[in-house]
Amino acid sequence: MSAAATLGEIGEWAVIEALIGDLTPAADVLLGPGDDAAVLAVDGPVVTSVDVLVENVHFKLGWSDPGDIARKAIAVNVADLEAMGARATGIVVGFSAPPQLQLRWVREFGAGLRQECAAAGVSLLGGDVTRSRDITVSVTVLGGLDGRPPVRRSGARPGDVVALCGRTGWAAAGLAVLQRGFRSPRAVVAAQRVPEVPYGAGARAALAGATAMIDVSDGLVGDLGHLASASAVVVDLHRGAFEVPEPLQAVAAATGADPYALLLTGGEDHALAATFPGAAAVPAGWRVVATVSAPTVEQPAGVMVDGAPWTGGGGFDHFGPRS
Amino acid sequence: MSAAATLGEIGEWAVIEALIGDLTPAADVLLGPGDDAAVLAVDGPVVTSVDVLVENVHFKLGWSDPGDIARKAIAVNVADLEAMGARATGIVVGFSAPPQLQLRWVREFGAGLRQECAAAGVSLLGGDVTRSRDITVSVTVLGGLDGRPPVRRSGARPGDVVALCGRTGWAAAGLAVLQRGFRSPRAVVAAQRVPEVPYGAGARAALAGATAMIDVSDGLVGDLGHLASASAVVVDLHRGAFEVPEPLQAVAAATGADPYALLLTGGEDHALAATFPGAAAVPAGWRVVATVSAPTVEQPAGVMVDGAPWTGGGGFDHFGPRS
Repeated sequence: MSAAATLGEIGEWAVIEALIGDLTPAADVLLGPGDDAAVLAVDGPVVTSVDVLVENVHFKLGWSDPGDIARKAIAVNVADLEAMGARATGIVVGFSAPPQLQLRWVREFGAGLRQECAAAGVSLLGGDVTRSRDITVSVTVLGGLDGRPPVRRSGARPGDVVALCGRTGWAAAGLAVLQRGFRSPRAVVAAQRVPEVPYGAGARAALAGATAMIDVSDGLVGDLGHLASASAVVVDLHRGAFEVPEPLQAVAAATGADPYALLLTGGEDHALAATFPGAAAVPAGWRVVATVSAPTVEQPAGVMVDGAPWTGGGGFDHFGPRS
Repeated sequence: MSAAATLGEIGEWAVIEALIGDLTPAADVLLGPGDDAAVLAVDGPVVTSVDVLVENVHFKLGWSDPGDIARKAIAVNVADLEAMGARATGIVVGFSAPPQLQLRWVREFGAGLRQECAAAGVSLLGGDVTRSRDITVSVTVLGGLDGRPPVRRSGARPGDVVALCGRTGWAAAGLAVLQRGFRSPRAVVAAQRVPEVPYGAGARAALAGATAMIDVSDGLVGDLGHLASASAVVVDLHRGAFEVPEPLQAVAAATGADPYALLLTGGEDHALAATFPGAAAVPAGWRVVATVSAPTVEQPAGVMVDGAPWTGGGGFDHFGPRS
């Protein structure tokens, strides 16, 4: 079948085939794609989350390859399970696209899906394909807790430390670059295209005794704000705990931005932030960036930076304009 | 908050609130909406399926109320778990909509979600809301098998009978009516807006010894064709097993259609078709409509109607034009 053929010409089944490829199901996939539903063995309760990526909202065809878009869709979703201390094992994918799209695009998208599934250790269980005006990718991830309780946002206690695993500010720097029509520094552009989720770090944090955890999707100040509210604590971020990486310095200098605004409010990197009962409990690969204290009348639950309220903006509303 | 306010004005959190409403989680919901992921207790393996409904592809705003669209999104998805003999217990919802949409619309959509979840016995576990040009609803359903093996498409054997639970042709008749600008017969228009899925019938069929089962989403001839291929059998539909209901007679007469074409190839009603080892095994609420035989050189695996190949068309390709 010609890679230049359109989805409207090749039809639904060929699209599904291009997405699935040569699938070797893992042992816990009791029934994979091809029936009305899939069956996945789980040990104990199932943990689940959904993320939807929409063309021209979460990605642009001119900015990302099909494989990047697929990898991002998987990565952002698995990050949600990491943030519960869970282990992701399976995904289902809703794929909507215009009939004019070429088979070539879907094949590259399918290859990206399988690449990131392999990296994250999850199996493609099934999906739904349908027509739409804009390419829309909906990924639901399933996983298990391996006998542990889930690590919620609400468990942080005064005296805990906040540690971070993964990067912040890179994807936002990449977006700033792409929005200005540039393609470098390449490292931040790559970070915007596909986040580097620290697969496995969530489960290790749970094992190490993490008291609360969150996926940093909307920016560190905003997401630690959710954690602080849910836990009824004050989180005080220490600017000195952050080094400004070279590519972020370059983007900040070129755009006139504050590099700390990128680090503290840039979203879409999907680092993990977790609280631990003291620095000694923090596992390898994590670094302490904040402390946790009890709220007071003067300082209610929320996030501060170096002991003062953060005034640098940030946060992301999914119905507002892309910042 | 004014019901006329737009999603762009009220922001993401108010949208989530309108979708969730007053949620009373069931006992198996160990963690509901509000964290990075939800946690659902399941007894044994988890069964899952995803369906995506897109504005102007699967529904039109002029044809369906917001509540109908939500109910349809849940119903078509739960039907997939019914067809495995599974019991659906939870769903996650991806909701994408333009920022210009009014809060009123989302509130009615949320009410429909909760109404159909209650009817199907499933809990709303969580979701994702985001901006898009067209309203897009992605529902992933999770459930369990209560210790039974899944009923697959591939288990039909020569000598089995095929039985049907639920209606066929009604939604297609409703579509024909709506496409011509009419709103009656109201029963078929209602069937197009929200399918009447026979909740619980799939599990009862599994308990009764169903050897294969499928959700009739694309039409009886087409979907029994999938079952026949997967099982390597011939399914012979008996036209005499079908009465043509009065509203279908009316639509067929008004549009010049063959009423049996509606019954045998009309999709979107989400009846269940299952094979049983003899008529005695067929549970109450199901009626025998076909027999199963072994393929031959002259008649390979597939579907016949009254002993002859079906020549009336049918089937549905999700990238082709809406038939």
